[in-house]
Amino acid sequence: MAPPSKWLMKLPKFARLLLVIGIVIISFGGWLFPSLAQTNAWPSLANVTWGKGLPAFSYPFHQTPLTRYDGGTTKQVGTYNFPVSQGMAGVYMTLEPGAVRELHWHANAAEWAYVVSGRTRITLTSPDGSVEIADVDQGGLWYFPRGWGHSIEGLGPGTATFILVFNDGTFSEGATFSITDWVSHMPMTWVKESLGLTTGQVQGLPNKQVYISRRPPAPGPLAVTQPRNPNTRRMEVTHVHNLAAQPYFASEAKNTVLLASKKEFPASFNMAGGIIHLEPGAIRQPHWHPNADEWQYILDGEMELTVFASEGKASISKLKTGDVGYIPKGYGHALRNPTNKPMDVLLVFDAGEYESIELTGWIASNPDAVVGNTFQIPANLLEKLPQQKTLFAMPKR
Amino acid sequence: MAPPSKWLMKLPKFARLLLVIGIVIISFGGWLFPSLAQTNAWPSLANVTWGKGLPAFSYPFHQTPLTRYDGGTTKQVGTYNFPVSQGMAGVYMTLEPGAVRELHWHANAAEWAYVVSGRTRITLTSPDGSVEIADVDQGGLWYFPRGWGHSIEGLGPGTATFILVFNDGTFSEGATFSITDWVSHMPMTWVKESLGLTTGQVQGLPNKQVYISRRPPAPGPLAVTQPRNPNTRRMEVTHVHNLAAQPYFASEAKNTVLLASKKEFPASFNMAGGIIHLEPGAIRQPHWHPNADEWQYILDGEMELTVFASEGKASISKLKTGDVGYIPKGYGHALRNPTNKPMDVLLVFDAGEYESIELTGWIASNPDAVVGNTFQIPANLLEKLPQQKTLFAMPKR
Amino acid sequence: MAPPSKWLMKLPKFARLLLVIGIVIISFGGWLFPSLAQTNAWPSLANVTWGKGLPAFSYPFHQTPLTRYDGGTTKQVGTYNFPVSQGMAGVYMTLEPGAVRELHWHANAAEWAYVVSGRTRITLTSPDGSVEIADVDQGGLWYFPRGWGHSIEGLGPGTATFILVFNDGTFSEGATFSITDWVSHMPMTWVKESLGLTTGQVQGLPNKQVYISRRPPAPGPLAVTQPRNPNTRRMEVTHVHNLAAQPYFASEAKNTVLLASKKEFPASFNMAGGIIHLEPGAIRQPHWHPNADEWQYILDGEMELTVFASEGKASISKLKTGDVGYIPKGYGHALRNPTNKPMDVLLVFDAGEYESIELTGWIASNPDAVVGNTFQIPANLLEKLPQQKTLFAMPKR
Repeated sequence: MAPPSKWLMKLPKFARLLLVIGIVIISFGGWLFPSLAQTNAWPSLANVTWGKGLPAFSYPFHQTPLTRYDGGTTKQVGTYNFPVSQGMAGVYMTLEPGAVRELHWHANAAEWAYVVSGRTRITLTSPDGSVEIADVDQGGLWYFPRGWGHSIEGLGPGTATFILVFNDGTFSEGATFSITDWVSHMPMTWVKESLGLTTGQVQGLPNKQVYISRRPPAPGPLAVTQPRNPNTRRMEVTHVHNLAAQPYFASEAKNTVLLASKKEFPASFNMAGGIIHLEPGAIRQPHWHPNADEWQYILDGEMELTVFASEGKASISKLKTGDVGYIPKGYGHALRNPTNKPMDVLLVFDAGEYESIELTGWIASNPDAVVGNTFQIPANLLEKLPQQKTLFAMPKR
Repeated sequence: MAPPSKWLMKLPKFARLLLVIGIVIISFGGWLFPSLAQTNAWPSLANVTWGKGLPAFSYPFHQTPLTRYDGGTTKQVGTYNFPVSQGMAGVYMTLEPGAVRELHWHANAAEWAYVVSGRTRITLTSPDGSVEIADVDQGGLWYFPRGWGHSIEGLGPGTATFILVFNDGTFSEGATFSITDWVSHMPMTWVKESLGLTTGQVQGLPNKQVYISRRPPAPGPLAVTQPRNPNTRRMEVTHVHNLAAQPYFASEAKNTVLLASKKEFPASFNMAGGIIHLEPGAIRQPHWHPNADEWQYILDGEMELTVFASEGKASISKLKTGDVGYIPKGYGHALRNPTNKPMDVLLVFDAGEYESIELTGWIASNPDAVVGNTFQIPANLLEKLPQQKTLFAMPKR
Repeated sequence: MAPPSKWLMKLPKFARLLLVIGIVIISFGGWLFPSLAQTNAWPSLANVTWGKGLPAFSYPFHQTPLTRYDGGTTKQVGTYNFPVSQGMAGVYMTLEPGAVRELHWHANAAEWAYVVSGRTRITLTSPDGSVEIADVDQGGLWYFPRGWGHSIEGLGPGTATFILVFNDGTFSEGATFSITDWVSHMPMTWVKESLGLTTGQVQGLPNKQVYISRRPPAPGPLAVTQPRNPNTRRMEVTHVHNLAAQPYFASEAKNTVLLASKKEFPASFNMAGGIIHLEPGAIRQPHWHPNADEWQYILDGEMELTVFASEGKASISKLKTGDVGYIPKGYGHALRNPTNKPMDVLLVFDAGEYESIELTGWIASNPDAVVGNTFQIPANLLEKLPQQKTLFAMPKR
């Protein structure tokens, strides 16, 4: 029922009618005119090399152009450009030293983040009035509950790069609630009285959203960075976590998984995440997650992703550094490093507990009678099937 | 998939075709023909004086006509007439002394209520078979869990007036499940056998829904009002609460907030509510609720409501006594009493915990570096911004 | 946004246009041309004998043809053929001795099952790696959490017949995730490396979904049926339950209710179910469930079902052995055995707790003043109304 956006209203009537017809063609056209569908007009389908009748499970995010600000850059991926990613959306962001992603909150999503490189400082304000001010460096995480006020600052030296993941696929970073956007959209008299300022002082505030701002002097040491109100309580539960300092969740022949579920990072009660490292040719064994969607970001290297969607539908996608993958809850999947260089992938889940069932472990947990009858195979082939759960497979030498 | 209502079926075919065309025009017309949209045909948009591109956050409920019964009146507001109110719907109801809103239940929503004036008696039956029979006077609340059977009686002296709020915006009071509607829509033989009556006795029962019924003799004292079955267990947890008897949640310069969250009123585990009182010119400071939508009813006086919806979108609404406001979860908002008389507003939330973050407290909880950089202001202006959380602002004298 | 199925793509363009027009007519036609609607084209409406303006609450599942496999049969009912059943879908399945419903999982629904006749063996693998292998005979239940891997085997002697109920009305058994479908839709190299097989061995596996498979030798005793990996942990909480061995939840004049809620069967935390037995002419008294939808399967006999949907809408359906009924959460309903033979019905709820409010108990728990005023009746009729909660009513002799 919401009125259409302003830019739509500026279209001449002829263009609007064309757009309505376009919507009809997009909705039904691929079916009325199958030759159109065959061309795979969806950009995200371009890298599916095998399997038909499925949405794309990967998105060439490395091709998405950056939005540039003085002090930082950003770009985003969600259901608007990557339709399958219903449960989570992602943002890539960089901040120069001293630049701040201004005070803001998100009405409809929690934010889970991983620092790819550099150093950041976050502030987080809780509804109970307490605050956390913390530095998060490369390999660190933060989790900001839905609706809590926060800011992110680049500390330097060098650019800070981080990946933000939101537990709502329709999330758009452009629709966050920024403090300068808010204050500049209140009437003058309200701002004066609310903040206790004079008209001249209010006129010294930004008259529109700042988003990212770069302040010349570098931020000071954390120890001397205090809330304006010295009586502000410090948050009792930390909302930052050092993923890189954890022991491996799994490790085999140099392939590893780092994982922070709510067991390791209790504040992140409804999201989990980590990093998988695969050696050249290695496979992360086929498995599925009964309780969560999975969002992937290729930190380094290239990856092949197979997804099984039941009813004979499956696909393979190829992802490059900076690309994003997505596997709906309960869908079978496996990862492979098809190159001769190591591969690192960020994995994020929209549930606090990590749950998975491995194809190998599932077969191994069942009696011979069920496995043999299921696969309709004789005993001499049955005995070759897995008898142990394995998380990684290495190519035969 | 539900078949259309009967009154629709009575329309001649020509009228039906016109109606289909009308639906298309309503859906697309404002966009194809923007001049139509400019006229603000939506009644609830009429009082938005500032800000564009947003739904109305207030509804002129004081203009809605009452449905009259022998013994009471009612009217309702929900998504059908106030589209933004997705999370909650409201009903205004009055009962004369001795009139009863008949035994009924709601399949899809819990009911939270505030008694504006007069005295009521409620009965509530739980699935565990226990009952609560209680008197709720002016300033009192009740909470009826979704699906539990209940009744409301006007006790007198004078008319009882109360506001019912349901945690489903599509709720319609007309679609409640009334006991007389049920019994009058069972076949005669089932009613006879179920209730153990003769045909003649069943014919003495209402043959359609009663809704509100006025019985000549006044209800007796609570102490002698007992269940028909004297062995009926009394409910262990009370579902009524005296809001007016609570200490203030907040109080400053005669501005006050009364609040009953699940901490004060445990039965109301997924709804909370209270009353804000603002002196002439006072502002309830800008804030947002990370966990709940807010539904408002103006008990007395006039109110201005600013709502911030991100992306540069904001609005001001003006509300009179009897009007309704609504703020979606996480949206920034502030209230102001623009008159020279006090103002009282009922606030209801669709979460049991009360959570809010204040603009002033948020600024005060952050370091100078973040606030200064966010607002791009020099130190001499930075030091003027709030250093303390405040809930109210008074006009400068 | 999903591409249409392949068989649709094979239709000539003319047929596709007709189909689009057909969809429009189905959507609006009954309203534009009411004479069409009067013919009750919905097969599931055919047995509604009383009441208008409602969806069908019963489905003639006994008429649905079986899909036949070597070793078993199956058929299903969900929103696709029984629109009202939004919360649950059902499957009827048979397995011959030694036949196995292959290893599979369901991405979006838990599975609650009742064994109508014969004997079955189930295997269930948890995300924590533990397994349960158990025999479930006539009168037994199982509950498989959403996404957990499982299999079902017919043990013999005789055919095993069971009813599966899923807590998602859109569930389709055809869209389950089967292990052979998965393995046959991975590239050869991945299967070889994942399972440690040679190319020849992989070629010995099924090249498409098996679904049900019959292995000549009969399954062995449970005691010697062990996981392939002998170190597999056994599940600590059992996911099978003997409903038939429970004491009655309610019993009166040979009418009985057996019920397994999460109190009796803790693993089934979000589903419950049981069996109601009604003697000839008996009525299960009018009641409603505040917390759950109800799915019914007629095990034996015939049943009349009245449903009350508020606003003067109600219906009666007649169900035969093998038919399915459905009552949305909070809707009033009652059951009756209209024949001179006993009747047994399987009842399944999409909540772990069993909650109900009976019409008789509700009236009995209220004061005379409220009941009398509600029904607008004099004292001599008021005293005839129920003074006790009853679950069953017997016809007068």
